[in-house]
Amino acid sequence: MLTLHYAPNTCALATHIALEQAGAAYALARVDFSRQEQRSEAFLRLNPNGRVPALVTPQGVLTETPALLLYVAQCYPAAGLAPLDDPFALARVQELNSYLCSTLHVAHAHRVRGARWSDDAAAQESMKRKVPQNMQAGCALIESRLLAGPWVLGERYSISDIYLFTVSEWLEADGVDIAAFPKLAALRQRMRDDPLVQRVKAAEA
Amino acid sequence: MLTLHYAPNTCALATHIALEQAGAAYALARVDFSRQEQRSEAFLRLNPNGRVPALVTPQGVLTETPALLLYVAQCYPAAGLAPLDDPFALARVQELNSYLCSTLHVAHAHRVRGARWSDDAAAQESMKRKVPQNMQAGCALIESRLLAGPWVLGERYSISDIYLFTVSEWLEADGVDIAAFPKLAALRQRMRDDPLVQRVKAAEA
Repeated sequence: MLTLHYAPNTCALATHIALEQAGAAYALARVDFSRQEQRSEAFLRLNPNGRVPALVTPQGVLTETPALLLYVAQCYPAAGLAPLDDPFALARVQELNSYLCSTLHVAHAHRVRGARWSDDAAAQESMKRKVPQNMQAGCALIESRLLAGPWVLGERYSISDIYLFTVSEWLEADGVDIAAFPKLAALRQRMRDDPLVQRVKAAEA
Repeated sequence: MLTLHYAPNTCALATHIALEQAGAAYALARVDFSRQEQRSEAFLRLNPNGRVPALVTPQGVLTETPALLLYVAQCYPAAGLAPLDDPFALARVQELNSYLCSTLHVAHAHRVRGARWSDDAAAQESMKRKVPQNMQAGCALIESRLLAGPWVLGERYSISDIYLFTVSEWLEADGVDIAAFPKLAALRQRMRDDPLVQRVKAAEA
């Protein structure tokens, strides 16, 4: 049995969708950011980093979205969520997942979490102003190089599509017009139209 | 045949060490940052993101260190560089690799690449001041939770150790005293003492 510690509107959504698509047996545990539960003693015992997602497994607690997504894909191979035996295709999956966590999510975080990188209010405001430019540049790279279309790998759906969808839901708030990136916009719409994705989002709300 | 595009003192060192440990046939192509070659037309055709590492493979160009490390481990399984068939252990590898690319490398980049996130010189200076604190916090999390010791996975060596070593070489410049993190300091020293690592570093110099 697995337990996913999550908060709504975070990247934990990606692991949640993957668990559901894998047909995994799992429980949800909501971390209430409005009450700063991610800083509570109980949660910090689970994840000293104070972040979601955190996945409790029989062997221990795992964190970091790219790790969780591959873990789910590997534990439930019948769901076909990753090209596990094709090193180049798996590298494409990992390439996008790494880009999302290290560049696009980081660019996004400079809008609402600037205090991570500066204690100065004026500097935090300055970072916010650059967010739309960085998010647009990231989307342009994805559209031109990392997203083959219609899915990240082309015809084959994978955990990368789940993660990319999750981050794409933040774009308007980050000042990006997704219509400028037609393959990305189409991917997001297909995911939004998926009843499973709708069910997962409803469970988080 | 593979070609690794790299620059000295960057995270491309991790992929370089992995290729050497895997016994791969590869060529090196140096990207001269002092001449802004990463912005040259020729390099941007390879990697529109203008970054190293970029690995040219027979199937196409791959980027992003966590993707490249797993690719090398999977293409050369005899080298045993990752626990490919153990989902939990592989998730531990991926967890550290994700943490390094999305948090520790990002924290480091705020010292020398602040222009990525703000156009304002005062804001960039403000970010620099916070780098030692963020790097120390990251090292503390690694030491207490992500690095079992003596290697990331305990007794078993993996691609995570290569990546962690690579980032650990930046710590003094980022204002961190590695002696405060004994497991990490010991890992770095063992890697520094490895003749293969010394040969790889000499090839980059």
